[in-house]
Amino acid sequence: MRIGVVLSGCGVFDGSEITEAVSVLIAIDQLGGKAVCLAPNIPQMHTIDHLEKKPTAEPRNVMAESARIARGQISDIENANASDLDALIFPGGFGAAKNLSNFASKGDACEVVPSVAKLARAVHEAGKPIGFLCIAPVIAARLFGATVTIGNDADTAAAIKKLGGTHVECGPTEVCVDEAKRIVSTPCYMYDSSPAQAFEGAKKLVEAVMKLAKR
Amino acid sequence: MRIGVVLSGCGVFDGSEITEAVSVLIAIDQLGGKAVCLAPNIPQMHTIDHLEKKPTAEPRNVMAESARIARGQISDIENANASDLDALIFPGGFGAAKNLSNFASKGDACEVVPSVAKLARAVHEAGKPIGFLCIAPVIAARLFGATVTIGNDADTAAAIKKLGGTHVECGPTEVCVDEAKRIVSTPCYMYDSSPAQAFEGAKKLVEAVMKLAKR
Repeated sequence: MRIGVVLSGCGVFDGSEITEAVSVLIAIDQLGGKAVCLAPNIPQMHTIDHLEKKPTAEPRNVMAESARIARGQISDIENANASDLDALIFPGGFGAAKNLSNFASKGDACEVVPSVAKLARAVHEAGKPIGFLCIAPVIAARLFGATVTIGNDADTAAAIKKLGGTHVECGPTEVCVDEAKRIVSTPCYMYDSSPAQAFEGAKKLVEAVMKLAKR
Repeated sequence: MRIGVVLSGCGVFDGSEITEAVSVLIAIDQLGGKAVCLAPNIPQMHTIDHLEKKPTAEPRNVMAESARIARGQISDIENANASDLDALIFPGGFGAAKNLSNFASKGDACEVVPSVAKLARAVHEAGKPIGFLCIAPVIAARLFGATVTIGNDADTAAAIKKLGGTHVECGPTEVCVDEAKRIVSTPCYMYDSSPAQAFEGAKKLVEAVMKLAKR
């Protein structure tokens, strides 16, 4: 089973949340799947110094930074084909709201980056499942009007509804499954989770996605 | 149990190997310990574009990049006290050989960065265990003349001996324990490991370190 993992940089404040992304890669491998890392080859919205938590002047590229998590084994999402994949998973981190979509700046008026939206729609239309962690479910609400969880944050839950989705409150390691739309989501670091909690939620999400992909 | 985790940047080719570092953080949490992330506040040796696998002109700071893995929760190793820690763990990645030591450029004539050597020596002299993943065991050979594994790479094994250590061949997920010196090591990505194998080796190392720390 080949599962596309859509990365958005490398670091929670301007890219993929690293523990979530790595947890997804470990869980896919533990469960007998093969991860195919993908990212858009575009500039990051900005770079955040993760120590000072402030923007820096330095430009970084989403795909080049994502390659750090993937040990260099990553492809441009522009060239990915839905027919080569059995499922798709979006780890969270602000990169999902800054580089894969503009939810961080536009809120419920956000759009998804065209190359990302194109692959996600093609996977979805082929009846294949898609998983979303942390803040990434805003993309599922925007593209598919899916039922998802982002945990229990009231403002983000309200935005999910305005984006056309339905929000279900879930605990840190719980998983929400929209059976009809084949969309799975879990909060991870939308809560103040520990690394083991993030791994538990991510692994449950991968299990649910792989179960849907077998049907 | 408080375990210092010494990071060396963020990305296998110029910093900490991300899957190893995250696996250590997850395993410590799963096993009931508390990770304390530490890094030297110094410039990286260089920055490598992980897509092109070539150096770039851009300078990066070891502690600021390590903060990406630690979600901003990291301290300068210069200010760390051995008395606040029950053990220490060094994930691998080229950062261990480029930023924590100069093994990548000096080989068996390498030295360890003073702030890193100072804390490691203090922890070791207090009788507390230290774990080393991947290429990081070169630091254990240099500082403590320990018995370690880096897997089965002949050249690195020879360098370990010249550094004053003893090398034991181990498989990808096996752990080498120097009981007398309280040093634990495991190869992880010194082999062409998968993410689940890296996690398995890292978790076994954390278990062995925590077992030694309880004695």
